[in-house]
Amino acid sequence: MIQIVKIGGNVVDNPELLRKFVKDFAAMPGMKVLIHGGGVMASQMQKSMGMTPVMVEGRRVTDEDTLKVVTMVYAGWCNKSIVALLQGAGCNAIGLCGADGNVIKAAKRPPVFVESIGQDVDYGYVGDVKAESVDAGFIYSLLERGIVPVFNAINHDGEGNLLNTNADTIASSVAMAMAGYKYRSRRDVCSACEDCIHCSDDGRLTHEVELIYCFEKDGVLYDKDDDSSVIPEINRERFAELKAEGRVADGMIPKLSNSFKAIDNGVARVIIKHARNVLNDKGTTLI
Amino acid sequence: MIQIVKIGGNVVDNPELLRKFVKDFAAMPGMKVLIHGGGVMASQMQKSMGMTPVMVEGRRVTDEDTLKVVTMVYAGWCNKSIVALLQGAGCNAIGLCGADGNVIKAAKRPPVFVESIGQDVDYGYVGDVKAESVDAGFIYSLLERGIVPVFNAINHDGEGNLLNTNADTIASSVAMAMAGYKYRSRRDVCSACEDCIHCSDDGRLTHEVELIYCFEKDGVLYDKDDDSSVIPEINRERFAELKAEGRVADGMIPKLSNSFKAIDNGVARVIIKHARNVLNDKGTTLI
Repeated sequence: MIQIVKIGGNVVDNPELLRKFVKDFAAMPGMKVLIHGGGVMASQMQKSMGMTPVMVEGRRVTDEDTLKVVTMVYAGWCNKSIVALLQGAGCNAIGLCGADGNVIKAAKRPPVFVESIGQDVDYGYVGDVKAESVDAGFIYSLLERGIVPVFNAINHDGEGNLLNTNADTIASSVAMAMAGYKYRSRRDVCSACEDCIHCSDDGRLTHEVELIYCFEKDGVLYDKDDDSSVIPEINRERFAELKAEGRVADGMIPKLSNSFKAIDNGVARVIIKHARNVLNDKGTTLI
Repeated sequence: MIQIVKIGGNVVDNPELLRKFVKDFAAMPGMKVLIHGGGVMASQMQKSMGMTPVMVEGRRVTDEDTLKVVTMVYAGWCNKSIVALLQGAGCNAIGLCGADGNVIKAAKRPPVFVESIGQDVDYGYVGDVKAESVDAGFIYSLLERGIVPVFNAINHDGEGNLLNTNADTIASSVAMAMAGYKYRSRRDVCSACEDCIHCSDDGRLTHEVELIYCFEKDGVLYDKDDDSSVIPEINRERFAELKAEGRVADGMIPKLSNSFKAIDNGVARVIIKHARNVLNDKGTTLI
């Protein structure tokens, strides 16, 4: 099995939680990939440089100066300090933005009409990523050599431009690409993992892929004001019921919709949990 | 042959020169590695954040906040924008700091007595790199797959800490490590290059390694006020004469001494030239 873990700003910006997470992530057995955000630190950096962060529907409007800041924060400080901590914990990690090895390409988002503010928005250097634009073969070649890829939210268009993208979407795109990719192992069986699924036709391998979103709650809550009301398992029917009951709303709806899309595209399951629980089975599992 | 090219802040901080350099570097045939600085931009960033850069004998005193800034600038913006430009020019590059894949380890510099200021200096998060701390096998594994490594000056101590190091020293350490490393190609002959030197004893390969330092002059000048007085070739005897004559002085003496040390350690030749001449044979060759 391959585990794709996404952590957000609440982990990256909290040194104590980050150190605990890194230790736990390093201890996870088998093949794994980490994707991280860092938005809170980017906004702080913008302010310390006299800039005003502009967000529209949760996405950062990214002009040239903002692109510089988010690249410095996500691909520079956040990415490299996480990689160094992982190395210190005995996990051979490599930090990657999409331009590195051309591993993820993004398409620049054209100006779009945003209903909530009733006008066109040009997000600037913001890109969108799809599973088809992820080079899963390159990721497998690292994993097979025991190297753990650590992705930040900076990608590129292949024409020389960096683009600011969404870390949640990178995580689901990487998971879908890896679930769908049949690769020819350098060895007869994969070195990093015992449970490869051999494709009978041509001897190529696929892996079961699990996608784990870590966020600030212990899982999807039945009662948003009760942190202990975590729903252990949600399938598509239950999701429809929870929406109808108004139990999941706002930001959780697209998160769950995207998770079910990943499951439609070959990902075995999606787990939503707190970063401190990455080694245990707490959280909400979507199947 | 493998070419290790180092560019300094005068290229990285000059968008027009950088674009020309990237195009030329992408057009260089065969296996190649790029190492870049970025010190001018780091100082500007420090100032824009209200910090005062402190330099002692040309090295930046690096406290925790400064480490954050240099990591953001070198490993973030400079490294990723160079990699994206190279991808746009058709060169499949990967940006690396020493923590990535554990490719370069550095040793934290203990406080040292600095004669020029007559006191002990604690440089903080500053590290020193040696050829022995470079994983040449990892670099070869990338080159063999047609991937060009792009190193910045951030390395790590293997204990979870990033360290600010010297890009010139990284370049010579990488060159020496690669010249000394005998590797077993995944193919019978190396895929990326025709001129492997086969080691007769065990079928492993070595390559001729050339180290190219790009700087703001056309080469080592016989008359420092005459930019056309480039000395085409310097061997050890000529270097002694030039020192005795006072023709080379100051920063050029350690640069040349380090270059001859690289030649002592298996590097075929060192070339000192302007970044705009990376594709032609102008410059000073040390043999």
